[in-house]
Amino acid sequence: MAPANNRPERNFRLTVAYDGTPFKGWQRQPGKPTVQGVLEEKLSAVCGHPVSLLVAGRTDAGVHALGQTCNFNTTSRLGPARLGLVLNQVLPHALRVTRAQVVPKNFHATYHAKAKLYRYVIRNRNDYAVFDRDWVYHLRRPLDLGKMRKAARHLVGRHDFTSFCGISGRDRNPVRDLKRIRISKKGPNVLLEYYGVSFLHQMIRILTGTLVYVGLGKVDPGAIPGILGARDRKLAGPTLPPTGLFLVRVDYPAAFPPVKNKPRGEPVE
Amino acid sequence: MAPANNRPERNFRLTVAYDGTPFKGWQRQPGKPTVQGVLEEKLSAVCGHPVSLLVAGRTDAGVHALGQTCNFNTTSRLGPARLGLVLNQVLPHALRVTRAQVVPKNFHATYHAKAKLYRYVIRNRNDYAVFDRDWVYHLRRPLDLGKMRKAARHLVGRHDFTSFCGISGRDRNPVRDLKRIRISKKGPNVLLEYYGVSFLHQMIRILTGTLVYVGLGKVDPGAIPGILGARDRKLAGPTLPPTGLFLVRVDYPAAFPPVKNKPRGEPVE
Repeated sequence: MAPANNRPERNFRLTVAYDGTPFKGWQRQPGKPTVQGVLEEKLSAVCGHPVSLLVAGRTDAGVHALGQTCNFNTTSRLGPARLGLVLNQVLPHALRVTRAQVVPKNFHATYHAKAKLYRYVIRNRNDYAVFDRDWVYHLRRPLDLGKMRKAARHLVGRHDFTSFCGISGRDRNPVRDLKRIRISKKGPNVLLEYYGVSFLHQMIRILTGTLVYVGLGKVDPGAIPGILGARDRKLAGPTLPPTGLFLVRVDYPAAFPPVKNKPRGEPVE
Repeated sequence: MAPANNRPERNFRLTVAYDGTPFKGWQRQPGKPTVQGVLEEKLSAVCGHPVSLLVAGRTDAGVHALGQTCNFNTTSRLGPARLGLVLNQVLPHALRVTRAQVVPKNFHATYHAKAKLYRYVIRNRNDYAVFDRDWVYHLRRPLDLGKMRKAARHLVGRHDFTSFCGISGRDRNPVRDLKRIRISKKGPNVLLEYYGVSFLHQMIRILTGTLVYVGLGKVDPGAIPGILGARDRKLAGPTLPPTGLFLVRVDYPAAFPPVKNKPRGEPVE
C-alpha cells in the first residue's frame, strides 16, 4: 500500500461505474477478471507504484455499479481530473471512472460509508429482453406492486435479517437497519430500491426474491414478520440472479471521523 | 431447401430481434457465429430437415435488429406459436423470435420487402456509456440538430448515392429512393431514422457520418448536393461503427406479387 518513494502522499477517492457481466465481482482473485484486480493493475501502472484500493462495498459476480466508491493513497503528481482521463483510456469499456477527487488523508471508503442505495431491476413484461438481458431479471408474470409495498413495510427498520442472509455466520451481527424500500414502475421495469447502512450477504437479492413471491401471490404480505422472526433462510424467497442488481450510490458524511483500527470489510451484496 | 418428406409444405415468416454484438453479421459463414447460421441450425433441428432462410436485408457484423424478417418452407407440423416458443428455448439470448406466422406460399422476405426503417443511435453527451456501449455510437461534442435536418432535406428523394456507398460496384444500380430521414432527441441520445426501399452497402453509416460532420460544423448543409452529384465516396463523411445501427422494421404489402425468378440478394446495411 505504501508508495515506494519520498514524494508527499495524497488520498484519492474514485467513483466508478461498471457492468458486472464480464467481472467475477469486485474482490481481487488471482487469475480472474475482477473489478478491483483490473482497477488496481491499471492504477499501479498510472501511478508508478503498487496501489491497493479500499472500497465502500464489495459487489458479487455479475452485480453492477453506477456509483461504487473506493480510495487509495498515492505519491503520483497527477491531478484528479487527469488521473480519471488517463485511467479511462486504459480501462475496459465495461468499467469507467466517473469521478476522481483528492480527499482528506483520513477518508476511508469502507469505514466512512454512511449509507448505500441499491436498485434491483425486474423486467416485468411478457416480451423479449434482447438488449437488457444482462441488466435485468426477466419475469413475464405480472407483479402486484400493492402487495409488495405492503410486505416491504414490514421489512423496513432495524431487524435481525438472518432469514435473508445467503451464508449465515459470515456476518457476525445479523442485525441491519434498512432505512427505506421504494418500489416503482419505469416503462417495462419494476424497480426495487433499498437504502441502508450496510447489508448482509446476498440480502438484497433474497429480499427481492421474497417480495417477488409476494407480488406473485405465493407469499402473503402478512407473513413477513413471521419470516423475519424465524431467523431461518428456508422461509424466505429465492436468491434472485445478480444481473438485476445495481449499487447506485454510496453516501458519506461531510466530515470523516478518525479511523482507529483497520475496520473489517463489510460483507455486502 | 426442399424438405425431405412427403408432408405438405408451409411457408413460415419469422420476425426476429438480435443484439449484433456476438454475431459476425446476418449471413451464414463457415465456422463463424452469424445470425443466419445459428437460426438455420436451430430451425433445422426443430423442423427435422435442413432449413434455408430468405431474409429482408442482410445486416453487417455488429448491426442490430428489432424487426428483421425472414421466411422458410417446412413440412414440420408445429404451429407458429409453438415453433416460436421452442426456438426461443434453444436460441442464444442475444437472438429472439418475436413473431412467427404462416404466410402465403409465394411470400418472399427479400423480394416482397416494400420498405425498411433503420435507426442510428448516437449517445451525444459528455459522460460514460458503460451499459449501452455496444448499442450506441458515443460522441461527446454536442451536435447541431438544426443543421443536420437542413442537410438531411437534400438527401431525401431519389438519388445516385455512389458517394455514400462503402464498396462501389457491389450494387449494380447506385440509385436509391430515400423516402424519409427523421432526426430526434431522446434522453442523452440523438436518433437518426432512415426509411427507404433498400440501401447501398454501408449507406446508412456513411449518411450518418456525413450528417454528424454537418452537426459538428465540419461540413456545411449546403455542400450536400455537391457531394451527391460528385459520385465520389471520398467527399462524404466517415463510415460510423455498426454499434449504433438498428434495423427497426420491414414493411410488406398486403398482397404478395408472384416471384418469377429468384431475385438477387439486396446488399444492404
